[in-house]
Amino acid sequence: MVVGVSFKGKIHEVAGVRLSAVSAGIRYKDRPDLVLIELAEGTTVAGVFTQNAFCAAPVLIAKSHLSSSNPRIFIINTGNANAGTGEPGQQNAIKCCQIVAEHAQVSVEQVLPFSTGVIGEELPVEKIAAGVPQALDLLGANNWMDAAHGILTTDTRPKLVSKQIEVAGGVLTVTGMAKGAGMIRPNMATMLSYVFTDAIIDKDTLDKITARLVNGSFNRITIDGDTSTNDAAMLAATGKSEISISSLETTEQEKYFSCLQYVFERLAVELVKDAEGATKFITINISEGKDEQECLKVAYCVAESLLVKTALFASDPNWGRILAVIGRAGLESLEIYKVDIDVGNVRIVSGGKIADSYTEEDGQAVMKHEEICITINLGRGNAKETVWTSDLSHDYVRINADYRT
Amino acid sequence: MVVGVSFKGKIHEVAGVRLSAVSAGIRYKDRPDLVLIELAEGTTVAGVFTQNAFCAAPVLIAKSHLSSSNPRIFIINTGNANAGTGEPGQQNAIKCCQIVAEHAQVSVEQVLPFSTGVIGEELPVEKIAAGVPQALDLLGANNWMDAAHGILTTDTRPKLVSKQIEVAGGVLTVTGMAKGAGMIRPNMATMLSYVFTDAIIDKDTLDKITARLVNGSFNRITIDGDTSTNDAAMLAATGKSEISISSLETTEQEKYFSCLQYVFERLAVELVKDAEGATKFITINISEGKDEQECLKVAYCVAESLLVKTALFASDPNWGRILAVIGRAGLESLEIYKVDIDVGNVRIVSGGKIADSYTEEDGQAVMKHEEICITINLGRGNAKETVWTSDLSHDYVRINADYRT
Repeated sequence: MVVGVSFKGKIHEVAGVRLSAVSAGIRYKDRPDLVLIELAEGTTVAGVFTQNAFCAAPVLIAKSHLSSSNPRIFIINTGNANAGTGEPGQQNAIKCCQIVAEHAQVSVEQVLPFSTGVIGEELPVEKIAAGVPQALDLLGANNWMDAAHGILTTDTRPKLVSKQIEVAGGVLTVTGMAKGAGMIRPNMATMLSYVFTDAIIDKDTLDKITARLVNGSFNRITIDGDTSTNDAAMLAATGKSEISISSLETTEQEKYFSCLQYVFERLAVELVKDAEGATKFITINISEGKDEQECLKVAYCVAESLLVKTALFASDPNWGRILAVIGRAGLESLEIYKVDIDVGNVRIVSGGKIADSYTEEDGQAVMKHEEICITINLGRGNAKETVWTSDLSHDYVRINADYRT
Repeated sequence: MVVGVSFKGKIHEVAGVRLSAVSAGIRYKDRPDLVLIELAEGTTVAGVFTQNAFCAAPVLIAKSHLSSSNPRIFIINTGNANAGTGEPGQQNAIKCCQIVAEHAQVSVEQVLPFSTGVIGEELPVEKIAAGVPQALDLLGANNWMDAAHGILTTDTRPKLVSKQIEVAGGVLTVTGMAKGAGMIRPNMATMLSYVFTDAIIDKDTLDKITARLVNGSFNRITIDGDTSTNDAAMLAATGKSEISISSLETTEQEKYFSCLQYVFERLAVELVKDAEGATKFITINISEGKDEQECLKVAYCVAESLLVKTALFASDPNWGRILAVIGRAGLESLEIYKVDIDVGNVRIVSGGKIADSYTEEDGQAVMKHEEICITINLGRGNAKETVWTSDLSHDYVRINADYRT
């Protein structure tokens, strides 16, 4: 299942980026599972990676290569996460980079490896090696849809978002793709996401921009509360537009940042809408909290409560479950009589208890929507935060009980 | 669904305790939903209540009455939690106590109210009032099974545990019941649990004993990570055996404490085995942690991971999910190469990666069991902790999507 329709806009090519996807038979036959993305010389690259202590071998190698080179090629495989594989796993990730480097005549450090799929199985390097020459041959500037398909696992549809913006000096383009449908509660990182732009941005600025973008997008979603071993969010700036972004201080540069924000946020939302088994897309707004931290604490507790998620799936206005979660979120000295809860435009809890105006009919009507906004006012400060999540359906259990079979 | 068979031993009466259950039609017709438990004069009572900030009206009243009197009667209703009901909810809880007090000729403060069921609906006091006289008439010393049935909500079977122990001076009896199948991650408290003994125990000692018992039993289980608004665990000592327990310092008294521990632990395990939709009972042992806190952190992260729970439901040895959860549990400076994971007697992860001896066949065989023990060795200290949980099945979603319909 999936919520709504996917992004339907035009996908703009990004000068300096070529992509391809081939079927290497890594786990399943006849589906694209090996993606190459080539970046023009001079491209700057920033990345944010998973905070999971058991981060996968390719994450370790990608971080190391990113810190010592200007990356020219991303190699991404699905079907196998190369995680929980110890030292041999790292050797296998390096081997993949070596194979690409030899064929593409770049240095090993200029290749960043990414893997996603089942944890704990040996990466079939020979299958990947066999697929690389064809993938290099197929590199093209308009293969966005192929690549976006090639990085998927349990996702039901590709996630591609593209936007252009006019600034003084010309037009800047931002196009990106992402994958991920389960094991998703990014922690200063995300699933796999690759965003490309043709602006000129130096490495330091790009690092700062990427951290800020990820924090407002992928770090505000949760599907099942599990942080993956393989998360990575990359932003690459090819510079081919010859328009330079040196900071975010001018109005023009702010406009450009909004464009980047749009793409990151939209990709994050697309991940949630295609969450494993999702039938609903839920926005959780917390307002009047003491600080960002406590707003996020409440938002994530609500977003990850199985009881709230199953009530949302059932379109059941069982708001007592939301109330119970707020009560257990561990806020110090919470004055419950100041708490209000709205679902959509229906006030359900007012001053800590059921609102006088509330009727079960109103509650049922608003819970039937496919996109639902839960607003919780804590009445104790000025901070506010938003988190996006999905409901919990029969299909989530089916997908995750059957994943390896 | 439910794991294993329920407690089959003899249920011993406890001198000084009489019980009854009647059908008051609070939510459903023709099922017992109103339980009275009468305690002999001179009984001491201790209780541990939910830490949820939105704790229910009856919890507030029970705590207040317990602090100002020697309770003589517990009144317990199911079908309606009287939570999220504000000040009128408290008035309704007090009214229930008044009705019992008038009929039974005790003071209002000697009646403790307990409610469990749907949150946020008005308590139908008139239905409860109508049921009280019959419930008082039916009070009897051997109605344990009726009462244990009467306190259930989504549970599929009653939970009753009983044990006697010989000490110098005679025989001491401990008999208790509990309910709860969802919204269960007690936080220094529990669902509803009532344990009775005929020892003489002063209030201070009983308070200490109860806190210790709850910490090792109900505070070590999680079903879905949600702490209820209505949790309460009560221990009452009638003194009718005329054997005094003044501390836990002698061997005899330790023997008696073990007997209490057995009943509390067994009731906690019974709750998990009858968890909503449960098909498996999972014990999570953490060893060689730095301290209790970090052991519990890892244990609860594993116990509450949807991905681990669905893999357990599917009998799929997808151990990479366990590894990923340990990695995201937030332990500082975790040395992953020291981590070992066993499922049953099968070593699956050794030194942070898949064990050389591991085979998928061994993994599949051990995952098929109905009771599974996951042992995680963190290799960084001497602390150890155990948490009990269940798997996550299609039925959990069905039950919680349908609960109010």
